[in-house]
Amino acid sequence: MSTADPPVFTDITAAADRLAGHVVRTPLLESTRLNDQVGGRLLIKAECLQRTGSFKFRGAFNRMSLIPDGRRAAGVVAYSSGNHAQGVAAAARAFGVAATIVMPKDAPAIKVANTKADGGEVVFYDRYRDVREEIGARLAEERGATIVKPYDDPGIIAGQGTIGLEIAAQLATLETPADAVLVPCGGGGLVSGIALALNSALPGVPVYAVEPAAFDDTRRSLVAGSRLANDPAARSICDALLAPTPGEITFALNHQLLAGGLTASDQAARAAMAAAFDAFKIVVEPGGAVALAAALTGQLDIGGKTVVVVASGGNVDPTVFTGALAA
Amino acid sequence: MSTADPPVFTDITAAADRLAGHVVRTPLLESTRLNDQVGGRLLIKAECLQRTGSFKFRGAFNRMSLIPDGRRAAGVVAYSSGNHAQGVAAAARAFGVAATIVMPKDAPAIKVANTKADGGEVVFYDRYRDVREEIGARLAEERGATIVKPYDDPGIIAGQGTIGLEIAAQLATLETPADAVLVPCGGGGLVSGIALALNSALPGVPVYAVEPAAFDDTRRSLVAGSRLANDPAARSICDALLAPTPGEITFALNHQLLAGGLTASDQAARAAMAAAFDAFKIVVEPGGAVALAAALTGQLDIGGKTVVVVASGGNVDPTVFTGALAA
Repeated sequence: MSTADPPVFTDITAAADRLAGHVVRTPLLESTRLNDQVGGRLLIKAECLQRTGSFKFRGAFNRMSLIPDGRRAAGVVAYSSGNHAQGVAAAARAFGVAATIVMPKDAPAIKVANTKADGGEVVFYDRYRDVREEIGARLAEERGATIVKPYDDPGIIAGQGTIGLEIAAQLATLETPADAVLVPCGGGGLVSGIALALNSALPGVPVYAVEPAAFDDTRRSLVAGSRLANDPAARSICDALLAPTPGEITFALNHQLLAGGLTASDQAARAAMAAAFDAFKIVVEPGGAVALAAALTGQLDIGGKTVVVVASGGNVDPTVFTGALAA
Repeated sequence: MSTADPPVFTDITAAADRLAGHVVRTPLLESTRLNDQVGGRLLIKAECLQRTGSFKFRGAFNRMSLIPDGRRAAGVVAYSSGNHAQGVAAAARAFGVAATIVMPKDAPAIKVANTKADGGEVVFYDRYRDVREEIGARLAEERGATIVKPYDDPGIIAGQGTIGLEIAAQLATLETPADAVLVPCGGGGLVSGIALALNSALPGVPVYAVEPAAFDDTRRSLVAGSRLANDPAARSICDALLAPTPGEITFALNHQLLAGGLTASDQAARAAMAAAFDAFKIVVEPGGAVALAAALTGQLDIGGKTVVVVASGGNVDPTVFTGALAA
């Protein structure tokens, strides 16, 4: 697998072998009470319970395992709004190598603190003025380190795709077919990996990308058939999902595999965080809650259907979480 | 198995067979960041993720499966501060029979609402003036229903003990021995079941009951060698753990099997709720957090040790949870 070609299904099964014993096999949670409310069956893949509080550890660990040992020893560089930062820092720690993380200076305090706590060196940039890819490339060259991209990399996508394998296995245990799978989407690494896994493991089940309403680049790109960008002036509380445009590799997969895109307003994301607190006893961050938000706002007809919803992360500052519960 | 004799190990393995496919195999969560802070390894058995938001569904479902079909059709009666109520209501719904729940009128609103949402009929009593056992017995006689006790019943204890089997299996997967297991304790059903399971599945590992500081009846009873009561004037935010005295069957087991009792102040429970939010992305209620509180307050020397901590429930009103995060 080169770092330019899209991954294939066997890259995901290989990733699953590498990750075994290093990741949490996150549960598929259900609430009969919430099911009654929506008139369908919701199964929540609680990836907020993953190591470092989001799915990102899977891709980071898989990608780093693909770096030749000698080169890996020189460390890694990543740029991230926060969850990828924590995933890379923790994976680097697991491999015993240094991690330098380029983070936006407005990243949630909890994500910065946790990245440092896992041994990552943090370098800040301005999300709306600087080009983080340039900063990352310069640091990597200076240090001889390998860049671990947040999503547009086959090793990353394959790692995230292991969630799809788990979903298929967990549905088989429940002896339950699924009518749809909803996945939060920023750059598209998570949803493309899951869609690729399910395309082989659970063929025929429609997979949807769910984005913040003001960052619906993937939804619009799927309609247009080519990669479109978001308005640079757009803002959202979903800090994990603010990628400016779909990735090249991720969009190539998503264009081929996804049933479409859905969206969630910030207020719907907050309401979904409160619903997840109440029904599932999980802490979900705004960006991690958009798929549940889409399910709860009736964008898809879920009456009598079984819908798998990925809750992708839980790294949220207490004040933001408290605000969602009080809304 | 009569309803008077203590359960034995094979009652727990039989319960596990009955519960398979009906309960969540809750994950064992870990945070390298929190491990660094405490200088040991904490593994959190996140039973707040169980159906109905607490471990109670396990015991309720197992106990109800032991009622002869004809008699079960007449329904069940339970008395509970809330978590057992929800567990019994959901289990009754699974069996398609009626559940009448006797609840204290100061039970958390969320527990009352959820019990009703799962079809339970709620009858209120005064926690400090009425005798709930008498109210329950009267209702059961009127309706021909079976009483499902909250803890002092071998079928209940065996159901809760399935958590111990899962802990042993999950530690084996991690190839990790444990130095201690800490379990929240009210009437003692959960800790006695887990201790009974581990006594066979993981012999030699000390199991501790953890109680609210003002409700340390089991701790003192273990020291005294006989069942002692709590001060009727005592109060705690740990509403799930306010049993007045250890159960007969549970204490017989606990006296034989436990290494001792630990305690947590209300403030320590609140701090543990905040730590669980931050490190594990789980919602834990005050009573469900006492075992983590004991681990975090240094009552046990956990330096360099691996300690399994049961987080037993997550049914907490948003205002109480928000208060814990702000403390």
